[in-house]
Amino acid sequence: MKQVTRRQVLGPLAIAAGSCVLSSCLSKRVVSSSDGITGQDVPWPYEELDADATAARAYDGYRQGHCMYGAFVPVVSQLAERRGEPYSSFPVGMMRYGAGGAGGSGSLCGALNGSAALIGLFARNEDETKLLVDELFLWYEQTELPVYEPAKPVVAGQMRKSVPNSILCHVSVTMWCRASGYKISSKQQKERCARLTADTAKKTVEILNANFAGRFSSVHDFEQDVKTCKSCHTKGSEKSNTRGKMRCGTCHFSLPAEHP
Amino acid sequence: MKQVTRRQVLGPLAIAAGSCVLSSCLSKRVVSSSDGITGQDVPWPYEELDADATAARAYDGYRQGHCMYGAFVPVVSQLAERRGEPYSSFPVGMMRYGAGGAGGSGSLCGALNGSAALIGLFARNEDETKLLVDELFLWYEQTELPVYEPAKPVVAGQMRKSVPNSILCHVSVTMWCRASGYKISSKQQKERCARLTADTAKKTVEILNANFAGRFSSVHDFEQDVKTCKSCHTKGSEKSNTRGKMRCGTCHFSLPAEHP
Repeated sequence: MKQVTRRQVLGPLAIAAGSCVLSSCLSKRVVSSSDGITGQDVPWPYEELDADATAARAYDGYRQGHCMYGAFVPVVSQLAERRGEPYSSFPVGMMRYGAGGAGGSGSLCGALNGSAALIGLFARNEDETKLLVDELFLWYEQTELPVYEPAKPVVAGQMRKSVPNSILCHVSVTMWCRASGYKISSKQQKERCARLTADTAKKTVEILNANFAGRFSSVHDFEQDVKTCKSCHTKGSEKSNTRGKMRCGTCHFSLPAEHP
Repeated sequence: MKQVTRRQVLGPLAIAAGSCVLSSCLSKRVVSSSDGITGQDVPWPYEELDADATAARAYDGYRQGHCMYGAFVPVVSQLAERRGEPYSSFPVGMMRYGAGGAGGSGSLCGALNGSAALIGLFARNEDETKLLVDELFLWYEQTELPVYEPAKPVVAGQMRKSVPNSILCHVSVTMWCRASGYKISSKQQKERCARLTADTAKKTVEILNANFAGRFSSVHDFEQDVKTCKSCHTKGSEKSNTRGKMRCGTCHFSLPAEHP
């Protein structure tokens, strides 16, 4: 009964989703039949989208619901316009929680959190999710942003760029404030984050398009200093005492003198 | 047409959701009618849940889909079992992306990310979201965890506790590895994170229960050292050059000598 319902809703789309054929979609139910979840679990079928149109929607979306919402909604809304359910029933407003690094905490950049959530919605397994999230996060950490120039900017003018050097909102925003001279929560800082949300949404669609067309390959890798740290500290190394893939020196900027 | 569909699905529940009466639910549509989103946007009605039963489900959920999934699914699945739609159609498997601080990056703890997503789903406005997320995140940062003791532990035995001192997976896990002597990705570390996921899910339900019964008030506040840092660096202060609410000293552990 579950499968019939799912086929009715997702059948035509599954064929359109490149390598996400129906059988592979159906094989990924991750919850038991006793948990009350009877609808369409992941992966939801993905269709190629226009990256520039997505960026424009994300820029506008930032003003409606901040960074995570701004990055997440454009993809779901475009698929909803084309295909209706199940996309049209996603409670997109929930993604407002990710603003300012989740509830304003300054942790994971909301544009990245929303984009990673999209990857979680469409990816066919955990390895694929990690592969695509890795590429997105490393791109963000290492790229001068924002690049996006809106057709109708809320705050006009040339935008100072900076390399976030971190996937954390707190660091990313501080780095930009330092580079630009603007204060936190200024209209210029919000404009920077709106444009960065557009950049991140665009990159995410480029990654998803490539992945589901079977032509994705990672472009970004850890910086050399991160590789050096990991050689002693990551899983399976001598110390095996830390986890994560964030750039180390952004927080560990002043290691004790006795560190080798 | 939208409202009729929404009333049909959510009408009975909205009455059961304490102060989330139907009119307030309907007033919170955050997307325009041209975006293809036609289903039930936030807030979804919340009903009081048993916190201990939620913890037990979260402990099991961790083994099925890691930390973010483990924290998110128990609440949605219990409401789906009671009420069916729209809960039963939420694509819960997407929440696997939050594992290990999102794609293994070590940023926001997945149990917190999943719990904050729940708050985003049920809260009635952005101020409420921030208020509840603040309480949850500060509780996590300042509390010796894990406390939860499973009836049927995957890894038996007394569990060493530690104060995470951070909402970041990278720091939280490293602090525990340092306190316990166990290595990263050991079966003991995974057991610790499974129990911590249970603790976080339980706390989230306690917060949601209190909030929708009209008896929520914040218990946790910033540590004194954070307040001192914020007096110069946060929005509206002299420098206004950082944003966030994370404990400062966890990363800024060795400030330059010239810092006042």
